[in-house]
Amino acid sequence: MEAIRWTEDRLELLDQTRLPHEEIWNTYHTAAEVAAAIRDMKVRGAPAIGTSGAFGVAIEAHRFAGLAEIRERLQEAISTLRTARPTAVNLNWAMDRMEEVIAQTQDDAMLPAELYTKALQIAEDDVTINRAIGDVGASLFGDHVRILTHCNTGSLATTGYGTALGVIRSLHAQSKLAHVYADETRPYLQGARLTAFELLHEGIPFDIITDSMAGHLMQRRMVDAVVVGADRVARNGDTANKIGTYALAVLAKYHDIPFYVAAPVSTLDLATTSGVDIPIEERNSEEVTQIFGQRIAPVGATALHPAFDVTPGSLITGIITEHGVARHPYEDSLALHVKGEKSE
Amino acid sequence: MEAIRWTEDRLELLDQTRLPHEEIWNTYHTAAEVAAAIRDMKVRGAPAIGTSGAFGVAIEAHRFAGLAEIRERLQEAISTLRTARPTAVNLNWAMDRMEEVIAQTQDDAMLPAELYTKALQIAEDDVTINRAIGDVGASLFGDHVRILTHCNTGSLATTGYGTALGVIRSLHAQSKLAHVYADETRPYLQGARLTAFELLHEGIPFDIITDSMAGHLMQRRMVDAVVVGADRVARNGDTANKIGTYALAVLAKYHDIPFYVAAPVSTLDLATTSGVDIPIEERNSEEVTQIFGQRIAPVGATALHPAFDVTPGSLITGIITEHGVARHPYEDSLALHVKGEKSE
Repeated sequence: MEAIRWTEDRLELLDQTRLPHEEIWNTYHTAAEVAAAIRDMKVRGAPAIGTSGAFGVAIEAHRFAGLAEIRERLQEAISTLRTARPTAVNLNWAMDRMEEVIAQTQDDAMLPAELYTKALQIAEDDVTINRAIGDVGASLFGDHVRILTHCNTGSLATTGYGTALGVIRSLHAQSKLAHVYADETRPYLQGARLTAFELLHEGIPFDIITDSMAGHLMQRRMVDAVVVGADRVARNGDTANKIGTYALAVLAKYHDIPFYVAAPVSTLDLATTSGVDIPIEERNSEEVTQIFGQRIAPVGATALHPAFDVTPGSLITGIITEHGVARHPYEDSLALHVKGEKSE
Repeated sequence: MEAIRWTEDRLELLDQTRLPHEEIWNTYHTAAEVAAAIRDMKVRGAPAIGTSGAFGVAIEAHRFAGLAEIRERLQEAISTLRTARPTAVNLNWAMDRMEEVIAQTQDDAMLPAELYTKALQIAEDDVTINRAIGDVGASLFGDHVRILTHCNTGSLATTGYGTALGVIRSLHAQSKLAHVYADETRPYLQGARLTAFELLHEGIPFDIITDSMAGHLMQRRMVDAVVVGADRVARNGDTANKIGTYALAVLAKYHDIPFYVAAPVSTLDLATTSGVDIPIEERNSEEVTQIFGQRIAPVGATALHPAFDVTPGSLITGIITEHGVARHPYEDSLALHVKGEKSE
């Protein structure tokens, strides 16, 4: 399964607002179009929007090849892409990588090829990294493990394989997985729509639950571990992720159930001291009061819509990256992971 | 606002599966029809199904007036109604009241009038009791209080006024209410559809939130207290209520936020020792994987659907009834409430 395809002059994205009912691929020829697709959640998931943003810059370079103002145009594109969504740091991380390439490329004529090469590398690395995360994560568990997860962190949220869902895939491949409970993940229903789509495709045994059932399942000892993804991890381990993650972490703590975050090093943001410094995107009220365009609440009723929340590092058992499992104190362990040093 | 109307020969229910989009009243002429309406959640809410069940028996008595087998028919009707939904005890409580009337009525010819009188009394008492609950509950809070609630516990869930929503109404009437956060309450969306409908109607300031946002709001100190209803309270204070309530109680405990249950004495079930003895209704998977008949999950995906969960008494700050606020140890305080003795 894949959700992102590319060539030098265009990006194709599987429209995640239409899944699982329709598999529609949209084609984008400009960075502004890619930024709009990210903003409108046609593509979502921290690693996937990082990869998409990188290709957004590459296709802009192809579009303006030979133009005197190519560097200004690329800077504009990068600025537009950086602000498409505020919480996930991977988009900024990818834009930093593209800016490095621009700075290191003296010859304007080489920009399109160099930027495309970098975007390709980001995409390919993401899949390799996710497989490593999956294997590291799977090593944490014994047989017959029952995992509860939130949102979608699989092939659709990354360039391929997935982060938290990568751990689940690896557990399944190793025949250690008994069952998955997939939070439906209101309001956008990434769990019911996208995670269910991927798990069905892989033949992994699962049930969807409403977000409100997680506590009940933990109380009944039906969950052995919670594994979620991340949109940004601060230096102290505080982790921004899809709204509802924080409540799961509190519930897991209360029930003595391990709570793991799975994320690539590109999601670690050591420049952000703690969770209070992570910007939390507030999205439209209608995304809560309507489902698939159908109003569920009476006209006149408003809803809050923080799209993410922040789980303090103190509630996180470990942060699984491609380099191992970071543990308390996160200031030290995450710094090692960013340097590329293995742990555990 | 009202959701239940009656005459001697029929019951009319505002169809709660269609709200807030359409206000459709259905008319029922038999107990079996009323039982089906309860099972299909056309009417829901522990006190409302108690009242509806009582009128179901009364209209059955009217239907079979003069028939030699009237008592057998009434027993059949009561059995059918008792099993319509298993968790809320109010339906059983109301059936017990109707059986008492039948036992005390020697003359078959008097059964229709006696049973209708009892149903009327149950209905009228429910409103009076709810107003008392509202006033008791409101006395617990100071000014500018921000209440988070779950499901719908208002006029639509009772014969009128409401339990937890009765407390909110009383707070609003006393100008002590700053804001309400209404959990949308998946899967049936009682909060987004019904509570929002009532709060709009009353001009009470509120926002809908997804169930997954409650923890985030507590973390941000936006909630002063949680007030919920109940479907059954066991002797030790363990409380069955709409799925998601238990998670709220754990979150409230973690954040040191008071967590109150508001329920009439008819919801107290001293015959049930503790929460493990409360039957938890498992409903259809499709009620999770579909919303308003529209599939949200891919074909082939299944969902769990426990409709209720159990919150241990140890997580409950107090249980508000028409007789005051019961507190730990609940074995003692709830017994006093059932006897009708005031506390606090």
